[in-house]
Amino acid sequence: MMTDLILHEYANSGNCYKIRLTAAHVGAMIERREYDILKGETRTPGFLGTVNANGRIPVLQIGDTFLPESNAACVWLAHGSALIPQDRFDHADMLRWMFWEQYNHEPNVATLRFWRAMVGEANLTAQQREQIPARETAAAAALALMEEHLAARDWFAAGRYTLADIALYAYTHVAGEGGMDLARYPATTAWLARVAAQPGHIAITA
Amino acid sequence: MMTDLILHEYANSGNCYKIRLTAAHVGAMIERREYDILKGETRTPGFLGTVNANGRIPVLQIGDTFLPESNAACVWLAHGSALIPQDRFDHADMLRWMFWEQYNHEPNVATLRFWRAMVGEANLTAQQREQIPARETAAAAALALMEEHLAARDWFAAGRYTLADIALYAYTHVAGEGGMDLARYPATTAWLARVAAQPGHIAITA
Repeated sequence: MMTDLILHEYANSGNCYKIRLTAAHVGAMIERREYDILKGETRTPGFLGTVNANGRIPVLQIGDTFLPESNAACVWLAHGSALIPQDRFDHADMLRWMFWEQYNHEPNVATLRFWRAMVGEANLTAQQREQIPARETAAAAALALMEEHLAARDWFAAGRYTLADIALYAYTHVAGEGGMDLARYPATTAWLARVAAQPGHIAITA
Repeated sequence: MMTDLILHEYANSGNCYKIRLTAAHVGAMIERREYDILKGETRTPGFLGTVNANGRIPVLQIGDTFLPESNAACVWLAHGSALIPQDRFDHADMLRWMFWEQYNHEPNVATLRFWRAMVGEANLTAQQREQIPARETAAAAALALMEEHLAARDWFAAGRYTLADIALYAYTHVAGEGGMDLARYPATTAWLARVAAQPGHIAITA
């Protein structure tokens, strides 16, 4: 099982960080290949034709096959580990939070961070700027749903640290960079500290 | 394993249909409970407090536990069946298309259908109406990516019919109701026919 692994990524992306954090927990060695998404480096004919026709990072390259979608790459890496519950309900409940993350959380929490901390508000298009209030409302709703869940529980699924926590930690812990005020969510803040205290944890800047 | 299953749904939703289609394939009996999302029936205190704090359907109720997120419910139902590949890569690749469906396909293809075929264009808010061109562009890009994939393959993952096909079939086969022209995507149209020809297939109106 010594297949070469290459992560095609933009290191500051939470979606890419999820994969590195999962790899750190399971002890997988990954070669990293950086693309500047602000310069369109994932929209070149070479990238589209070989790495991902969807023009997005992250993509986990496993030997000569390519696996896009951050949460799918985490599932591949964590195969057979304690990060994925075996129990039928717990397993589906973990995926429930990972699908929710991609649908309700990432498009709002991550997009606000991308626009404000990476692109810069001055460089946004008029259409993007108009979307900020709606994205802020939806991001606050996502954080409120997490807060309600965590008020009564330590982890998202299965009563323990799983890929659901990794998927949600990635953009939540840097939500402040997008203008969200994490101090309003004390149960979430306590959960962020629990995640960061897990053995083998690495930072997004690592 | 005779746990009572209840699907909290809006029957015309593709996300709800995915669950019914998966249940039909695995022979699971599900009681159906309908909510009119146009009348806010999933935003009542009772629904939010008991069924789903996220205020959305579908939710699969398994005994007295609740599982939101359509694709997670499909995974729970199809547990141990041929609809979920066992192979490590094929399994992750199936999930890759299911995450992609929720991120790139559903917010565009399904939203256009909801706005045009259910809410009605005359009843949209100004903000919704302004978003139509961007959603159409993104929906066309999603269908083009499927078309490219299917030009060389019969199925999305694992070389056979899996939950990835079910997840993507749900809103693709009714994309015309949202104004998309499926005739532009011949490989996708042929794949739609292959899905509908699977033994045990049921229609969205069933």
